[in-house]
Order: sequence, then C-alpha cells, then structure tokens
Amino acid sequence: MHSVQPLLDAGVKVIDLSADFRIQDVALWEQWYNIKHACPELIPHAVYGLPEVNREQIKTANFIAVPGCYPTAIQLGFLPLLENDLVDSSRLIADAKSGVSGAGRKAVEDYLLCEATESIKAYGVTAHRHQPEICQGLHRAAGVEIGLTFIPHLAPMVRGILATLYAPVKNERNVTQEQLQSIFEDRYASEPFVEVLSAGEFPATRNVKGSNRCEISVTYRDDTDTVVVLSAEDNLVKGASGQAIQNMNVMFGLEETAGLEGIALLP
Amino acid sequence: MHSVQPLLDAGVKVIDLSADFRIQDVALWEQWYNIKHACPELIPHAVYGLPEVNREQIKTANFIAVPGCYPTAIQLGFLPLLENDLVDSSRLIADAKSGVSGAGRKAVEDYLLCEATESIKAYGVTAHRHQPEICQGLHRAAGVEIGLTFIPHLAPMVRGILATLYAPVKNERNVTQEQLQSIFEDRYASEPFVEVLSAGEFPATRNVKGSNRCEISVTYRDDTDTVVVLSAEDNLVKGASGQAIQNMNVMFGLEETAGLEGIALLP
Amino acid sequence: MHSVQPLLDAGVKVIDLSADFRIQDVALWEQWYNIKHACPELIPHAVYGLPEVNREQIKTANFIAVPGCYPTAIQLGFLPLLENDLVDSSRLIADAKSGVSGAGRKAVEDYLLCEATESIKAYGVTAHRHQPEICQGLHRAAGVEIGLTFIPHLAPMVRGILATLYAPVKNERNVTQEQLQSIFEDRYASEPFVEVLSAGEFPATRNVKGSNRCEISVTYRDDTDTVVVLSAEDNLVKGASGQAIQNMNVMFGLEETAGLEGIALLP
Amino acid sequence: MHSVQPLLDAGVKVIDLSADFRIQDVALWEQWYNIKHACPELIPHAVYGLPEVNREQIKTANFIAVPGCYPTAIQLGFLPLLENDLVDSSRLIADAKSGVSGAGRKAVEDYLLCEATESIKAYGVTAHRHQPEICQGLHRAAGVEIGLTFIPHLAPMVRGILATLYAPVKNERNVTQEQLQSIFEDRYASEPFVEVLSAGEFPATRNVKGSNRCEISVTYRDDTDTVVVLSAEDNLVKGASGQAIQNMNVMFGLEETAGLEGIALLP
Repeated sequence: MHSVQPLLDAGVKVIDLSADFRIQDVALWEQWYNIKHACPELIPHAVYGLPEVNREQIKTANFIAVPGCYPTAIQLGFLPLLENDLVDSSRLIADAKSGVSGAGRKAVEDYLLCEATESIKAYGVTAHRHQPEICQGLHRAAGVEIGLTFIPHLAPMVRGILATLYAPVKNERNVTQEQLQSIFEDRYASEPFVEVLSAGEFPATRNVKGSNRCEISVTYRDDTDTVVVLSAEDNLVKGASGQAIQNMNVMFGLEETAGLEGIALLP
Repeated sequence: MHSVQPLLDAGVKVIDLSADFRIQDVALWEQWYNIKHACPELIPHAVYGLPEVNREQIKTANFIAVPGCYPTAIQLGFLPLLENDLVDSSRLIADAKSGVSGAGRKAVEDYLLCEATESIKAYGVTAHRHQPEICQGLHRAAGVEIGLTFIPHLAPMVRGILATLYAPVKNERNVTQEQLQSIFEDRYASEPFVEVLSAGEFPATRNVKGSNRCEISVTYRDDTDTVVVLSAEDNLVKGASGQAIQNMNVMFGLEETAGLEGIALLP
Repeated sequence: MHSVQPLLDAGVKVIDLSADFRIQDVALWEQWYNIKHACPELIPHAVYGLPEVNREQIKTANFIAVPGCYPTAIQLGFLPLLENDLVDSSRLIADAKSGVSGAGRKAVEDYLLCEATESIKAYGVTAHRHQPEICQGLHRAAGVEIGLTFIPHLAPMVRGILATLYAPVKNERNVTQEQLQSIFEDRYASEPFVEVLSAGEFPATRNVKGSNRCEISVTYRDDTDTVVVLSAEDNLVKGASGQAIQNMNVMFGLEETAGLEGIALLP
Repeated sequence: MHSVQPLLDAGVKVIDLSADFRIQDVALWEQWYNIKHACPELIPHAVYGLPEVNREQIKTANFIAVPGCYPTAIQLGFLPLLENDLVDSSRLIADAKSGVSGAGRKAVEDYLLCEATESIKAYGVTAHRHQPEICQGLHRAAGVEIGLTFIPHLAPMVRGILATLYAPVKNERNVTQEQLQSIFEDRYASEPFVEVLSAGEFPATRNVKGSNRCEISVTYRDDTDTVVVLSAEDNLVKGASGQAIQNMNVMFGLEETAGLEGIALLP
C-alpha cells in the first residue's frame, strides 16, 4: 500500500498480490489486519482481479487487487448458486483445506515438517482474514446479504486448496442434480481456467497442482436439500501468481491463457 | 455375521469390529451394504459399543457392535448439542477428514503413496455407509429426527480423523461460548477418553496419534449463529481397536483404561 | 521384445523404454530377468540411449534402448572419474535412493501410502537388475573392469533419485577438489541436461522434479582419499520418458531440448 | 558443559545428552564445534554411554556422555566386523539417512514442510561433527585405525535413521554369509535392544519408530568382496532419549528395559 501510488504516478500498471486493496470498506480492513491503511484513497480505484467476475473491468484497469487463495476457490464455487438465487445466502458454510505453502515461507515452528506432517487441524476457527473478502465478493456478485461460516484447515501437503461448500436450497426452490450441473457448466462454459467436472466426478488437489485451473463439482443432496460444491485449485497458481498473470494477460490484451497452459504435475 | 451365533452359543462374549450389527434396521443395512444379512435375528441383541452413551448396557452385554471410525468422532462431537436441544437437528453438517489407513490395507491403486500423497479429495459425496449409523446413534441419544450432510475426505496422512461439525442454533435458543464450553466439559467430565479442550484451543490429529483419546473443541460463531465442533481421534484406536478394548474392559469389569493409557506418539 | 522387429520392418524407428534391449549379453539378461529373450538377434542393433555417451550413434540409429533410471544417474556420476582413470574401478559403491514411483503404478501392498510413507529401507541388497546395465555402460565407456556394490533404497517420496557414489582414488594418482571440479565441468560443459554444481553446492531431488536435468556434485574427501559424487534426477523424466524424448530429438535432428525445457516444480 | 561439575559436586549423577563430553580429545572437539570447551578437565571422567560396549563401566559411572544418533546406529553396525578383524578398517563407508527430527525443533527454513518434504539430499558432505565420535568409538572398540567416509542425508520423514555401511573384506580373510550372520547374532545375542535380522530380511525405519530397538542386517556381496550392513533406529529413542534412559537403568541397577519396552507405532 506504500508502493502503489508512486507506481501509478509513474504510469506503471499495478497488479497487487497483497491483501491491501481487496476490501473496499477501509474500516473493516483495518479491523481485520489491525493496522492503519496507508493509502485509503486508492482503495476505490482497485479492480478486484477475479476474471470470472470482472473481466471487462480488468481489461481497462490500471490497478488490480488480486484475490486471496481461499476467496478464489470459494467464490468460484458459490457464485453459480447465488447468481441464480438457488440457496439461502445467509447459511453458507465453507470448509476449506489448504496445503502448508499457504502460510508462506516464514521459518515458523508450526510449519516445520515435523510439526505439520501427518496431521490435520483447523485454524482461524473463530475468525479468518479472508472471510470479509469472500463475503464482499459474493455480496457484489449476487446482490444479497451473505452469512458465511468459513473454517480453514491446514492439511499435511505443500500445495492445493480444496473447499467443500455447503448451501441449503431456498425453501421455495426446487432443484435437481441435472439443473445444478447445467447451471454450473453454463456459468463456466467459456472460462479457460474453470472446469466443471461431470456429475459423479469430484476434484482432488493433485489434479490441479502446478496448473492455473480450478476444478469444480456440484452435488445435490436430496436427503437434506443441500447443495455440496467441491472446488480445488493450486493455491500458488490460480490462488496467487497464476491468477496475477491471468489478470496481466487480460489487462494488456494478450491471450488470456498465455504462459498458463501448463498441465498439472502429478504429484 | 456368520461367526457370532456359534460363538455366543459356545458361551463366548463377542466384540464385533465389523459393520454387520451396527445398524438396527436390517433393510437399511442391506440397502447400504448391498448384501443379504446372514443373521438378522441377532441384530436386536447387539449393544452399540459407544461407552460414552451405552456404558451401563455394555457392562452386562455379551455381544457388542463396535462403532465405526467416523461415527465415533462425529457422535461424540454432536451429542452434547443434541442432548441439550440447542441446535436444529435437521440441518447438521459433518465435514470429516480421514487418513488413508481408514481404507484398510488392501492393495488398491487409489491408496498407493504416489496416488494419495500430497493431495486431498472428498469421496462418498452422494452417500457414505457410515451415514445411517451416525443418524441412528444421534437419533437414539437425542430422540429427535436427524438431517445430516456427511462428507468424508481422504487426507494425505496415515492415521487420524478430524471431524468439523456445523450445527445451526435453534431459533428460539440463545447460546454463548461460555455455556457451550460448560455443557461440553460437563458432558465428558468423567469420561477417560474424551478431552474437551479449553476455549481457544483446537484439536489436531497428531495429538491423538496412537492414543485412545478423542479431543473435542466447541466454538460459537455469533456471526452466523452456528456452533462449530472439532473432534479428533486416531481412527485405528478410539475409532477401532482401542474402542474395542475399552468395551472389553467395561464388559469384563476391568479398569476401563487398562492397556489404553499410551500417550500420542508425535508423529 | 515382441514388438520391435515388426515395427522396424514397417520402417518405424523405435525408442524402447523397457529393459529388453539394454544388456548386450543375452545370457546375462536372461539370468537377471529370468525369462527367455524373444528376440536375441536384435540386441546387437540396439543403440544404448544415453546421449551424453552415445550421441553420434543415436543420430543415425533406428532402434534405441533407453537406459534405466538408476543407470542414468549412476553412470553420469561415475563417467568423468573412470574416463580419466582417476579411481579404482574395482571398488565402486553406489548408494541410491529412489522415490516410490520407480516401482511403477502396480497396486502392491508395499507401495501403499500407509506402508511406504515415513520410512526408508534398502531393497535388492543382494542383487538388483540394474547392476549389469550399469556395469556394462561403465565398462564400455571406460574400457576397464568394473566392480560395483550397488544398493538401492526406497525413500518416502514420489519422484526422484539421488545416487551417492563413492570411489577410492587410485594409489598412484593425486587429485584435488579443484581438479575434480574442472574435470566434471569440462565433461558436461556442452550437455544441455547435466548440470555440474559449484563446489560446496549439492543436489537435492526437489530441484530436478519434473525437469529433464541431472544435477551432479563432486567432492574429494582427503581424509579417506575418496571421491564422493552426488547425482540427482527425476526418475520419471531424465530417468525415463524425458530421456526417451531427448533420444527422439537427437534421432530426428530436432533441437535436443525441444519439449524438455520445463523447469522443476517445487515440490 | 557448564552444568555438569556443579551437579556432580552436589552428588547428582549426570547423563548428558549433549555432544560436550563425547569426544575425549579436547582439541579435536574444539575444532569440530568451533568453541572453547568450558570444562576440559571433566572429559576423561565421562563414560561413553553405549551400553552394548560399555555396560560394565556404566554400572559404576556417575557421569555419562550419551552417544549421538548417527554414532549409535553406525557403531552398532560396524562393531562386529571390526572386533573380529574381518574388514579393512581404513576404507569404511557410512551412508546414513535421517529423518528431519534429527535437526531438532528450531524454526529454520530448510526444515519447513514445504522445503523438506518430497526430496532427499546429502549434507555435511565435506565433514560432519559426528565423524570424530564414530571414529573414536570404533577405534577404542577395535584397537585399529579407522578411515571412514561418512555422508549423512536428509530424508523426507520425521523419525528414523537408516545407516547403510560398506566395508571391504580384508585381503587375507575369507568370509561367508553364514559366518557373518553368526558373528552378528552372537555379538548381540544378549542385547535387549539390538535385533539382528535373519538373512534375507532387511531393516526399515518404520519398524523401530517409537521403540528403543536397533535393527541390523548383514549381507556379504561376493561380487565385490564387500560386507553391507544395514542399521536402523529411531533417532529420537535409541539415538537419543531412549538410550539415555537405558543408561539410567544400567547406572541405577534397574531392569535395563524398564520403561523402554514399547513396540513400534506403525507409522
């Protein structure tokens, strides 16, 4: 947040991978990040860099706030449900599992191999900084109030996020597996980096490792009238630098997939 | 199911680790396991071996059906909420993560190191065999109808189950973190193998590895009026053979903790 | 060995990834593989596909036997020492560590995650099939008799081979670290896929994961007058299909690095 | 080294897990540890706590220097060969593989899960601090000069050391597999924590995880007249605190196995 204004003044386009300009409500941001924002006047000028939502704005932007890793996987999973007003947006649950690289490369005891391997745990159970970003994005896309219980987990692996999303179908709506499948397939039909899996197939993080793809499945559970969406990405690619490159491509009129067509490396 | 009757006839007490006698409704069992039950007349005589619920019955039983791994972790987590009528029992969610040992030792491609390591995925998304066992147990304990969305996941580790449980508070109820903490602590105060963690502490599967303990935390999320319970066990110990030994101890009037006091081996 | 002759007859060039034509001595091959060779008359026509040794022959070949994974890493490590007559070729030791993918994708109990993770062990301690291939290659390159103690190990990871090679300096020779470093750097100066690390740097398998590169370090231990060479490759790339593609490129007059310039994916 | 004298003065018996008193030659110690020894006059009074060598001295000692992790596994593997004058002691090789817990619990970037998992590498290639301790121990036990090339490796796992030891048979000696097997079995027949595996069986670190046992196999390679010994231990138990307890038991006249009979926890 200290570097953006000088760069923009110098005529440089900025794609910011940090969390500094993702949240439009500066008070909310300051509450979650617990510091004073250095440059609040720029916040309204930041375009939120989720191409599947904001592609047109990104094309003409000169300043992009790239989404966080959890927010990317979770928004892509919930969006078709909310845009079609199918689920009760006040009772969303996102149970997300991340590899340890999500914590960065800091030399911290919790992320030592001997501490993190062969174990799974939740963290941020009472609150996590990505929650307001997710809610803001879903609210903007769907125009409804969002009630979200988001619980991130640390899984014993390096890369990958799997978000398991639960949404109760609205009382007055009737849905079927076939409808849901069509809605998701249609929503992402022209998206180069979102793949809706066929009914009966489910994502695994290994299948997107090293790639910029997000794999999504949608399942209707008629026993509880609940939709279960699974969304998998590589947190370091579609959840971070790959998405930044995707934004750059869109921003500069390049082929959106340029440099991003690598397939997953198993494993 | 083929061996139990002859053993009982010979005066041998039976502690059955299989799934054959866990479900009282034989039609339901046959539907989920897709075979004909060989010995339905014995099902009503099987005592469900969850000592935290059925200790008195176990003491005098001569035939025990030991609970499954997921059902143990999930029931222990939901029970205090349901027994106290705090949550809407029709909208429960159990997002469970298991190590690969849950699949047994079969030589199956999916469980090869090269396939299962460094990846997380869901399975049984549309339905899993442990679901009716969980619902039956919760229904019996709480006397209410259970609506449960249970999604198991395969985590890249050997041992351990972490169940993340979500339950919406009933409309007419008011709860606080302090109340929930007390309710859980009271419920399990005299249980040797269930440890309710202090508020702000959360379980990790490594902390119960090789031990018969189940670690539980309870968190009230006031932003969504939802209770989040985390329940961790070693699926091979409290979720299987350790629990069988615990049943044996109770059944034979031995010290309930005999042979089960080993602490976790990290990791 | 059943398919090659018909393919050659049809004018198709063959690059064989199997072990069928790697060993020129058919009796030796039959002894190690314990079957009758189906096509011994073709063995003399197979060019051994190690481009760092046989590039000129590969250019004009129509039938290539691609080296095994261990033989590639071990030969590349020993070659500069033997070609320069620096070490006692009768007392070579190769202690090699391989990821589990070296065993292929067979559903075998030993390679289950629960069996292979968090453990290291040796195998083939009395004898391993790759030993005659390594000895043949070193003998041909250096024109001396080879005495090799080769012990492979299974390491708890998916990809990668690290070969730690020990060779006693010949009695009558004097070597220094600087000389060794120069000899190795000169030997591989124009090789696109062998990188000799600077003195004081040592390979790790993660640094070559997914790439066709072999990283090599050479260290002189003056306390025991022994040379220690470390050689790391991805067993599935330079140790297998990547090397096959490299052969294809050479064979067809393509750029040798075509399709093989991907860098390592960490991890 | 600062605490021992005051403790001894107070009549307290000391079992020191640090490296401060393992090496009798203070100049050598200072060279390898690169600090001034604070208490050199105590060094000669430290009994080296390898019960398989020094049990009688330990019984009456009041000050024990517990061996390091690598030195324990490596000495136990070489001792029967050297005590029986079977191998050329000037040309020993120890290729050791350790889990990451050998590095302690320091928050260091190299030992982060994301850095250390799914990779293997050597370290201390030019020199490692445990080398003089190993040479001293072997020299004392066998009364011969020791030439050892010791190369430690970091394997992607938490616990365990596997040492692969290579020793050329002396020119004038003839050995057979059967002789070697007998020599090893006899040497450790009455040792509670060293298990010589049957011919054709080989150790894996998983089999000793959490236990105080060291598993050893011995193999004669007639093709190179070399003996290959494999020695596996849990570096945190027989290689550290378990061995300290074993010393305590011997020192205080307790049952040597007291508190140490736990079997391995797989995995």
